[in-house]
Amino acid sequence: MKEVKSRYEIFRQKAHIIIYGTNTVAGRLFDLILLGLILLSVLLVMLETVEGFDIKFHKQLVLLEWIITVFFSIEYILRIICIDKPKRYIFSFYGIIDLLAILPMYLSYFFAGSNLLMIIRALRLLRLFKILNHPHFSGQSLQLKNSLIASRGKIVAFIYFILISCILIGSLMYVVEGKEAGFTSIPISIYWCIVTLTTVGFGDITPTTPLGQFIASIVMIMGYGIIAVPTGIVTAEIAKSEFKRGLQTKRHHCMNCGKDDHSENSKFCYHCGNELDEHS
Amino acid sequence: MKEVKSRYEIFRQKAHIIIYGTNTVAGRLFDLILLGLILLSVLLVMLETVEGFDIKFHKQLVLLEWIITVFFSIEYILRIICIDKPKRYIFSFYGIIDLLAILPMYLSYFFAGSNLLMIIRALRLLRLFKILNHPHFSGQSLQLKNSLIASRGKIVAFIYFILISCILIGSLMYVVEGKEAGFTSIPISIYWCIVTLTTVGFGDITPTTPLGQFIASIVMIMGYGIIAVPTGIVTAEIAKSEFKRGLQTKRHHCMNCGKDDHSENSKFCYHCGNELDEHS
Amino acid sequence: MKEVKSRYEIFRQKAHIIIYGTNTVAGRLFDLILLGLILLSVLLVMLETVEGFDIKFHKQLVLLEWIITVFFSIEYILRIICIDKPKRYIFSFYGIIDLLAILPMYLSYFFAGSNLLMIIRALRLLRLFKILNHPHFSGQSLQLKNSLIASRGKIVAFIYFILISCILIGSLMYVVEGKEAGFTSIPISIYWCIVTLTTVGFGDITPTTPLGQFIASIVMIMGYGIIAVPTGIVTAEIAKSEFKRGLQTKRHHCMNCGKDDHSENSKFCYHCGNELDEHS
Amino acid sequence: MKEVKSRYEIFRQKAHIIIYGTNTVAGRLFDLILLGLILLSVLLVMLETVEGFDIKFHKQLVLLEWIITVFFSIEYILRIICIDKPKRYIFSFYGIIDLLAILPMYLSYFFAGSNLLMIIRALRLLRLFKILNHPHFSGQSLQLKNSLIASRGKIVAFIYFILISCILIGSLMYVVEGKEAGFTSIPISIYWCIVTLTTVGFGDITPTTPLGQFIASIVMIMGYGIIAVPTGIVTAEIAKSEFKRGLQTKRHHCMNCGKDDHSENSKFCYHCGNELDEHS
Repeated sequence: MKEVKSRYEIFRQKAHIIIYGTNTVAGRLFDLILLGLILLSVLLVMLETVEGFDIKFHKQLVLLEWIITVFFSIEYILRIICIDKPKRYIFSFYGIIDLLAILPMYLSYFFAGSNLLMIIRALRLLRLFKILNHPHFSGQSLQLKNSLIASRGKIVAFIYFILISCILIGSLMYVVEGKEAGFTSIPISIYWCIVTLTTVGFGDITPTTPLGQFIASIVMIMGYGIIAVPTGIVTAEIAKSEFKRGLQTKRHHCMNCGKDDHSENSKFCYHCGNELDEHS
Repeated sequence: MKEVKSRYEIFRQKAHIIIYGTNTVAGRLFDLILLGLILLSVLLVMLETVEGFDIKFHKQLVLLEWIITVFFSIEYILRIICIDKPKRYIFSFYGIIDLLAILPMYLSYFFAGSNLLMIIRALRLLRLFKILNHPHFSGQSLQLKNSLIASRGKIVAFIYFILISCILIGSLMYVVEGKEAGFTSIPISIYWCIVTLTTVGFGDITPTTPLGQFIASIVMIMGYGIIAVPTGIVTAEIAKSEFKRGLQTKRHHCMNCGKDDHSENSKFCYHCGNELDEHS
Repeated sequence: MKEVKSRYEIFRQKAHIIIYGTNTVAGRLFDLILLGLILLSVLLVMLETVEGFDIKFHKQLVLLEWIITVFFSIEYILRIICIDKPKRYIFSFYGIIDLLAILPMYLSYFFAGSNLLMIIRALRLLRLFKILNHPHFSGQSLQLKNSLIASRGKIVAFIYFILISCILIGSLMYVVEGKEAGFTSIPISIYWCIVTLTTVGFGDITPTTPLGQFIASIVMIMGYGIIAVPTGIVTAEIAKSEFKRGLQTKRHHCMNCGKDDHSENSKFCYHCGNELDEHS
Repeated sequence: MKEVKSRYEIFRQKAHIIIYGTNTVAGRLFDLILLGLILLSVLLVMLETVEGFDIKFHKQLVLLEWIITVFFSIEYILRIICIDKPKRYIFSFYGIIDLLAILPMYLSYFFAGSNLLMIIRALRLLRLFKILNHPHFSGQSLQLKNSLIASRGKIVAFIYFILISCILIGSLMYVVEGKEAGFTSIPISIYWCIVTLTTVGFGDITPTTPLGQFIASIVMIMGYGIIAVPTGIVTAEIAKSEFKRGLQTKRHHCMNCGKDDHSENSKFCYHCGNELDEHS
């Protein structure tokens, strides 16, 4: 009995290394195959909606989807089995995505059309970032993430301000242009204003009166100019974090108190006053 | 009589805390309810213009609008009563907006359609910034505002230059393309030029002659390139203010060697190891 | 005779102060009236091309244009008379523009339609920058101009690279999409590619085949991404010049050799080694 | 026999100077003529696809193309002959392009239509960068190239993230809008999402339901906001390299007090007034 358990233990450990590890050849290969299957699976869901394609290859598509779903199901169960704290995985971001990626196919057995939900599998593609677990890459991602988090407040305030402007300008355009030009209601006019301000410019609704075109011109120049604001915010934030990183490059390590974020030309620890060693 | 006055005084003080305060639970709750009502009110005005919706729920819409208007009216009166210098409020930005937010509904009693002006209530949504009176947030807003003010001159000069270019290019396109292609007059051609230069590109008017398309290509590349100018101006301004803020966070001055560019949390001079005084 | 000459001299001096000066009330007033007339004149040319408007007010438009042209002619002659080196003015940028602004109206006497050339008057609007001769404003303009000149080389290289890409992608799209989809020739396909890459997106020509849409997607993401390049170049340039200006703010002046671009914490002149005075 | 060889050697050397050199008048002239011929050749291929033009001037076009092709062939052979390590040239980027530029014309003798491949000649226009072999220009190009390479990782991660978002949003729009509005399949919906997110906005497919327009608005604001990310990355990178370049311009080191952050043209230490050594 004990031997069986230990065999199971060995299997768990091996599976853990293959599924969660990225340093061994087997682990890396597993990750690549998984990523390939996710990609294939996303492609299949897309192709299923292309009419000409679906009619010709419907059976093959469904078969492939079932094969991939079964593979993903086994992978999901193994992930739970071979980890020490399964709850932590199950309720993590990737754990929930992994579950949501297999459920729709089984649901499609009961509800037709629910297999479209399988597109959620696209979120599994984010695993690539986990696979690319290179310290250099992670550092850059983290830096970018921190910059975006730091500038979050300003960006939200900016968007809030933009939306209030769009409500006011949209209403104005509704009054100026009227229903004939396509500005059939204030919500539609606000939609037009967003389309214009963000410089997308679909052209499905366009002003036709001179006054409307004049207001539209102002909106466009506004949109062209104020894109500088989010760009400026994010750039300044990235530049700042880049600058900080630059200062930390030659990290002196204090032998006395352990602080290591001394600036490049420091001779003494800023924290305890201990003299810093050149090569530490 | 005196007691009545004092009771009135107490009421005024309580109202002041609820309406103007943001630190008590009641004050914060009032702000949230107010913001919710403003949002609801803006939504109502929008929905009123959606034909299908207005026909079905016209009575309910009007009723709700009257209820909100009465609430806003009471709030407006209370704001005047419970403040010590009512004139300062009445003629402030928010005071005028608050008045303009209630007038249209009463005017609609006399002039049909004037209730559309109620969309001005969207401006009351700016109150959110007042409610979010957090020092961290205010500091960031102020910094952003100052950066924009500092770059105002350059941005205006840039837009002025853009407009002169649009006049010249628009006239050129009017001559090149002519009335058949939709370039019916110079103002319309200038409108097209703004649409193109700002990379909005509605597509309602497009050049059809080879020469016109060649000029359009130049305009587009110009527009694509010179967006760098406002962006660069604002970014540099934000980066500068960010940089200054970084410098202003308590400069420690070393009493021994005079170095003063220590980082914020330094206790010892990085140059000579001397202990830094807290208040120097 | 001598008195007449001196009277003429006095007139010339007065005219010079009014026309070229910006510090006296008369000079400033003259500039404002001139700018107003230029604006009016540009508006007139525009309105002349608006059909409904021209039919109604043709006579008034022509009359006003003649009045303004005569005024501009007198101004031009006065500018030549009351300056000491008239040739320098005549062959300067503004001098040529001023001449080109009056010629078309006289030419329209012989050639119908040549009065459209009067739109060149829009270039006279650039005079505003001369009128706003404030040192603060000039400094900012100069800084912006220098930044753009400094980044000129990189921007031209970038646009050259973009154009080569557009030729290749345009040809590819011509082969992929063919004449039915609107890609009737390689030049048209290149035009489409510029429209797409610069994120203008008129929508007059759009890909219809899956492969074409795939290539278009790549072009769009490219265009969305590489706008970062000119922006980055200009921003870095502006930030650099901003940074330099920051260093020069507290300009120490060397009493010995006259150099004044010492950095803020300099104690000795970097050029001659002379000790710098604190308050110089 | 020996004399013949030496004559051939002299010819090779002369050809080498003319073809590869950029410092002599002949070399520079050759480069300019070559660039002109490349441009002309690219123009010819373009014009051949313009129907009206091709019918009129078909014979002349073909003749000119053959002349240029023969010239390019001779140039290609000479380039191989007069270089010491011909293999290195043949398999270099420019060598392959040069070969690809002449092959299509000869192939068109056997396969009709293959002369369209001649558009590859546009890549030969990149030679301009080689001709502009000015150290100042090269330095700037290199700096730009390095900045782009340094920010490559972040940009790729950003685009990967964008694509996953487009898959999810595209699928959502396919469900919301359906086939009537033009969202005929998920790939088409993803194409629409890329068109919208990159702010291109062709307008060939546009949402028509309120929910679809709401989602579209979010996509547009997203696209308008997140363009800040690649811009920020590249700008910070360029600014950093610019900053480093600034630091590297000859650091003078004061022999007396050790300060080494003197500006480029300093002759004396700004801190102690000691004369700076030229080569320190």
